[in-house]
Amino acid sequence: MIVNCRVYEDGRRCPGEFTPETAAQASREIDAFVWIGLYEPTPDEFESVRREFSLHELAVEDAIKAHQRPKLERYGDSLFLVLKTARYVDAEEVVEFGEILLFVGARFLVAVRHGEASGLQQLRQSLEAHQEFLRLGPSAVLHAIVDWVVDDYVPVMQGVEADIEEVEEQVFSLDRANPVERIYYLKREVLAFRRATAPLLIPLMQLATQPLPHVCPEVRPYFRDVHDHLLRTNEQLDACRDLLTSVLEANLTQVSVRQNEDMRKISAWVAIAAVPTMIAGVYGMNFQHMPELSHPLGYPIVMGLIVFICVGLYVFFRRWNWL
Amino acid sequence: MIVNCRVYEDGRRCPGEFTPETAAQASREIDAFVWIGLYEPTPDEFESVRREFSLHELAVEDAIKAHQRPKLERYGDSLFLVLKTARYVDAEEVVEFGEILLFVGARFLVAVRHGEASGLQQLRQSLEAHQEFLRLGPSAVLHAIVDWVVDDYVPVMQGVEADIEEVEEQVFSLDRANPVERIYYLKREVLAFRRATAPLLIPLMQLATQPLPHVCPEVRPYFRDVHDHLLRTNEQLDACRDLLTSVLEANLTQVSVRQNEDMRKISAWVAIAAVPTMIAGVYGMNFQHMPELSHPLGYPIVMGLIVFICVGLYVFFRRWNWL
Amino acid sequence: MIVNCRVYEDGRRCPGEFTPETAAQASREIDAFVWIGLYEPTPDEFESVRREFSLHELAVEDAIKAHQRPKLERYGDSLFLVLKTARYVDAEEVVEFGEILLFVGARFLVAVRHGEASGLQQLRQSLEAHQEFLRLGPSAVLHAIVDWVVDDYVPVMQGVEADIEEVEEQVFSLDRANPVERIYYLKREVLAFRRATAPLLIPLMQLATQPLPHVCPEVRPYFRDVHDHLLRTNEQLDACRDLLTSVLEANLTQVSVRQNEDMRKISAWVAIAAVPTMIAGVYGMNFQHMPELSHPLGYPIVMGLIVFICVGLYVFFRRWNWL
Amino acid sequence: MIVNCRVYEDGRRCPGEFTPETAAQASREIDAFVWIGLYEPTPDEFESVRREFSLHELAVEDAIKAHQRPKLERYGDSLFLVLKTARYVDAEEVVEFGEILLFVGARFLVAVRHGEASGLQQLRQSLEAHQEFLRLGPSAVLHAIVDWVVDDYVPVMQGVEADIEEVEEQVFSLDRANPVERIYYLKREVLAFRRATAPLLIPLMQLATQPLPHVCPEVRPYFRDVHDHLLRTNEQLDACRDLLTSVLEANLTQVSVRQNEDMRKISAWVAIAAVPTMIAGVYGMNFQHMPELSHPLGYPIVMGLIVFICVGLYVFFRRWNWL
Amino acid sequence: MIVNCRVYEDGRRCPGEFTPETAAQASREIDAFVWIGLYEPTPDEFESVRREFSLHELAVEDAIKAHQRPKLERYGDSLFLVLKTARYVDAEEVVEFGEILLFVGARFLVAVRHGEASGLQQLRQSLEAHQEFLRLGPSAVLHAIVDWVVDDYVPVMQGVEADIEEVEEQVFSLDRANPVERIYYLKREVLAFRRATAPLLIPLMQLATQPLPHVCPEVRPYFRDVHDHLLRTNEQLDACRDLLTSVLEANLTQVSVRQNEDMRKISAWVAIAAVPTMIAGVYGMNFQHMPELSHPLGYPIVMGLIVFICVGLYVFFRRWNWL
Repeated sequence: MIVNCRVYEDGRRCPGEFTPETAAQASREIDAFVWIGLYEPTPDEFESVRREFSLHELAVEDAIKAHQRPKLERYGDSLFLVLKTARYVDAEEVVEFGEILLFVGARFLVAVRHGEASGLQQLRQSLEAHQEFLRLGPSAVLHAIVDWVVDDYVPVMQGVEADIEEVEEQVFSLDRANPVERIYYLKREVLAFRRATAPLLIPLMQLATQPLPHVCPEVRPYFRDVHDHLLRTNEQLDACRDLLTSVLEANLTQVSVRQNEDMRKISAWVAIAAVPTMIAGVYGMNFQHMPELSHPLGYPIVMGLIVFICVGLYVFFRRWNWL
Repeated sequence: MIVNCRVYEDGRRCPGEFTPETAAQASREIDAFVWIGLYEPTPDEFESVRREFSLHELAVEDAIKAHQRPKLERYGDSLFLVLKTARYVDAEEVVEFGEILLFVGARFLVAVRHGEASGLQQLRQSLEAHQEFLRLGPSAVLHAIVDWVVDDYVPVMQGVEADIEEVEEQVFSLDRANPVERIYYLKREVLAFRRATAPLLIPLMQLATQPLPHVCPEVRPYFRDVHDHLLRTNEQLDACRDLLTSVLEANLTQVSVRQNEDMRKISAWVAIAAVPTMIAGVYGMNFQHMPELSHPLGYPIVMGLIVFICVGLYVFFRRWNWL
Repeated sequence: MIVNCRVYEDGRRCPGEFTPETAAQASREIDAFVWIGLYEPTPDEFESVRREFSLHELAVEDAIKAHQRPKLERYGDSLFLVLKTARYVDAEEVVEFGEILLFVGARFLVAVRHGEASGLQQLRQSLEAHQEFLRLGPSAVLHAIVDWVVDDYVPVMQGVEADIEEVEEQVFSLDRANPVERIYYLKREVLAFRRATAPLLIPLMQLATQPLPHVCPEVRPYFRDVHDHLLRTNEQLDACRDLLTSVLEANLTQVSVRQNEDMRKISAWVAIAAVPTMIAGVYGMNFQHMPELSHPLGYPIVMGLIVFICVGLYVFFRRWNWL
Repeated sequence: MIVNCRVYEDGRRCPGEFTPETAAQASREIDAFVWIGLYEPTPDEFESVRREFSLHELAVEDAIKAHQRPKLERYGDSLFLVLKTARYVDAEEVVEFGEILLFVGARFLVAVRHGEASGLQQLRQSLEAHQEFLRLGPSAVLHAIVDWVVDDYVPVMQGVEADIEEVEEQVFSLDRANPVERIYYLKREVLAFRRATAPLLIPLMQLATQPLPHVCPEVRPYFRDVHDHLLRTNEQLDACRDLLTSVLEANLTQVSVRQNEDMRKISAWVAIAAVPTMIAGVYGMNFQHMPELSHPLGYPIVMGLIVFICVGLYVFFRRWNWL
Repeated sequence: MIVNCRVYEDGRRCPGEFTPETAAQASREIDAFVWIGLYEPTPDEFESVRREFSLHELAVEDAIKAHQRPKLERYGDSLFLVLKTARYVDAEEVVEFGEILLFVGARFLVAVRHGEASGLQQLRQSLEAHQEFLRLGPSAVLHAIVDWVVDDYVPVMQGVEADIEEVEEQVFSLDRANPVERIYYLKREVLAFRRATAPLLIPLMQLATQPLPHVCPEVRPYFRDVHDHLLRTNEQLDACRDLLTSVLEANLTQVSVRQNEDMRKISAWVAIAAVPTMIAGVYGMNFQHMPELSHPLGYPIVMGLIVFICVGLYVFFRRWNWL
């Protein structure tokens, strides 16, 4: 599906509706560039775009099939950048990934999106308001999209960190939760998120430092800034992974400590219960000569003794923190 | 065993049956190249091939013995590439490996296969249908085979990932499974698979970026694409290894938690059973003055008391989740 | 908030109060440089500074928003350095971070501070006392600030190490503490501290070895010295991380050992209590022919036997270290 | 002890017995090279060799003392290579190491061996049979020795892998073995083996790719082949280390699981034994009005009840897999 | 404190006592070099040395304060090398560190020592006996000191390894030791030792391979030799760290296994004790019709039965290895 197809001349949007064909033609006639946005295109839908801008067969295949690693390729004269978008679904503690594939040429930028992503509409509007930046050409649009994708990693990171803090509280709280499953699946998401973002570091570094075709030198420091934001996210992810490994082990310790506490509590009660059985056993013996048995207060005294010892043990165990 | 021996002129297959000798001669006379496929050849079977294309002694030894690491060597004028094929046997959760060894020269490609592999027949047919690609010479065939081998890693990866998901469900399910053996052997397979695929990354990078003899520059971006697919598989393998390590520890935690649950359940029943013993012990004492003993309702009242306390404890433990 | 704004000519402070505008003008007229210090400036407060020294848009954004990674950027003609300040709050065992962002040009140094930091006042005074060093220009001030920030990491490191030693004592002491939560949160702080300091290594290495604009060659060995101090802190942090991982596991072992000790202690008491019950049970049997029952000393002898066995077991268990 | 001292001219062995002195002289007169083999030489024994071939003081010291890391040094005009030989003593599951130190010059190869090693005799014979290879000079002998040492790592590796498989079976078998000590010492051997072989990778890479004095270019691909074999061994060793770490943890899980099984089994028997005690306790009470007591079938009925409940519990626990 | 101050001309020690001033003057007049040794000098003591050889301010500060990382710096015309000396205190299983800081110029070597170190006296004597080596100038002395420091790491390493072997024996012995504290503190020492030695690798590599001022080319291979010895120590340290991590986990397994053994032993005794209680309970029931009770041999038979079952259980548990 073609979402939008616009032509920009000297930083300003040319009026009128365009198809890829008319847009390509316009960009050749006047000194302008085309920005085409597609959403999960079929091979047929993409065919006219491919033809007009002579995109490379391999990149086109990737753009239609998606499920690529983030990467920057140079096919002949044009650049091909793959990005992963991320969204944190807090209810399920899952990171959902989409994909944006960008073709950049001298006079065009083609963006193919797979999966959900929000705010591209806003991005377009705010960019069209910055004529002096848009005047720098397709690489300005490239930067804007990359920046927007990488900025969207921040709330995901915050969601993950908030969940890790919740898990920490659960582990060290007194309510005997065992969040091992939650810890494990959080680690799974952290690993998946890292796999989606870390490979983007090298392409961003290339965009920031190497002279690439169609990338305006004025835009380079901006890519360096994005690279820095991504590096920060990656360092946080590494720390998260490390913390989740530690929290898994801390949780195991807590489980063991609680098991010990339970065992001691149970044992204390068993000890208290053993007292009456033992004493009653003694006075259940059938010796003919047991003076206590015939004493009129024998029974109440023994019962009192039993209660006294049991209460004494209870107090004692309480003081030892066994109960 | 010589599986096939064909000569290609300008992207088209020359008619007729060839032996290695006639094929080599034909390729020298007309501007053509030879594609020979062998399956677990004996030294004798391989001798004529070696002689015709003057292959290096060391490479020939490797091709016959197999059990090599994936690697790319340059012996004199020809290239020698070793690949591992992989197949996932889901019933036994085992990855089976085969080996393909490729010799590439200016006018020949010799492929030696060890172990099972499927679909080479189809590969040949689909490649012969792409004359414009086959016209690029032996390196086009080289790419086709490498691409096909690396693509075959994907179902293996999926099989492993599906088994990891099953194991995760087992670990966190309530049915007290202890899949530690399965986790361990999955990790073993992941390590073996990684060892079979990771060393291929450098040869592919070399094929994609370095000017190598007999590798047509037009084919290079295709190798880069294969490299990317392999990198993706490798990153997934690393994540799998990490996850299996974590799931092993999570499983240990689950085992401990269940042990604690069992201990508490057992203790609760012990506590319930201790009550009648204790009370009966008291009324088994032989004191002469125990008014309850002579009371006509003494026995039913005490029995009722016992039942009441036991049921009370049961309800209590249920509420505490000990039973 | 503008904290200070001073002009230095030939290593000596020029008398009089300056605004950023008058300072910039003065620096252009005489051969002098400006040192401006700001504390959490608003965009408006920062605007005049930005204009006078033509700072780059991206750096300005970073300086106002803060929350950057330590980094060294070169925007056009000026350098931009981000630093993290650290302070150890021993009561909560937490490392508090602040941020200092520095712009260095040919004739100015602008320092923007976020969060608490102490001693900048002193730094200014001691630096003004070293005229021969201050004469080297803005890079001398840059070094002084970086040196002061990195020196401040040392007490943080010492605080962390002291807490690790305390935790070690707790783990291996006899008072059955379970400092798992403390260990975990210490590890968290160590990771955060590392994330705040490690990225500074590369900028410092660049300042020490690469020819950068506005960095006086005489100052370079001093940066190398700072780099070395930071490297030392980083190596200590790595060791701390490693130690905390080990202490977490050692603690788990200690918890298990104590559980075993408790179990043995409990079992010993159960065994001692089982003796009277067992013996009393025997003499509670109703056989008509039990000679001991009619013996006049039967009861005291049996009671003595019970006491003897119980005391014997107690002594025995003591010797075995079960009690 | 001088084991052998031979002179080779144009790939053929010169007849006659030589001492180091006569051999050195012969090699200078005719275009020949000397191959001297020594076994744990004393400084005096080595002195004449050192003098004739003017070996460097440091290398000589290493050659006599042994206990070096594998390394390749270039002292003045000659090369000095240190290798570790390995042998697996299966009975003790221990890897025994020896050392071979090689001096290579334009017209000589001096091999000093420390510790046991087998097959050097055969190596000499098979090499003397390949005149065309021996004609390449000392570096051909160098390759032959290195190749033979590295090939000898394979059976060691196989021995270790076989023992790991045995340990895996023990861990996951039902016979309650606890092979923790064996796992640990296997890991120790794997680490020691790795330390003995991994440092050799860089020297082999240098021999395969860098132009070194006295190393014939024709021999280089052969070193590359050896490098590849060593790399394979090293990757296997890394996998072994990883597996042993996992098997150690799997074993801990198994120990915990078995502890739980034991605890449940014990508890089930305790529960079965508690029933008669409890019921007998009830009928041991001394109430005057207990109609069952006077019933003529009371005793057999109660005994039957006890047996019935115990058997029922037994069946029940069996079905739950507690017994 | 100035420990010694000597002047060497052409490898021979010049007679007479020197102060730093007279020594510096002497070295300028004749072609000689000065070797000054200081022990924990105060700033005043060091001042004259600094002035005579114009040492750099930063290096001087380091030399007086000590507590530096091992490093090699080049300040202006002179080299500055920091080394850590190590000594193993076997009684406390602690590595004690000292520090040696070396300034090397064209005609001087200044050595500043902090902390204990033995044998420097001997080093001086043995070096003065090797005139031909001492003739190479200050770098010969530099090598001698570095070599002596690095050689001193070997006994430390051996001490650590011996203690690890002791710990291994403890872990796998039958005497139920729990050496977790010892393992932990050994790991601490290993990490500290590694931190003291590993940073020296790069300076040594620089001394061995790079053309540095005042380092005589003839001395370079000797530094390479020292580098190799240090590398060996470092690889052993890495292995030690790995082993200690594994032994910590193996110890945890042993603790668990022993806990299980204790639990089974306890349970077996509980089972044996339950038998008399159970049987006695049955014959303590008050049924009127219990034929066994009136049997004259009832009591001895039942007692015999109890003893028989208890002994039987004991034998049974012994055979099962529970007792």
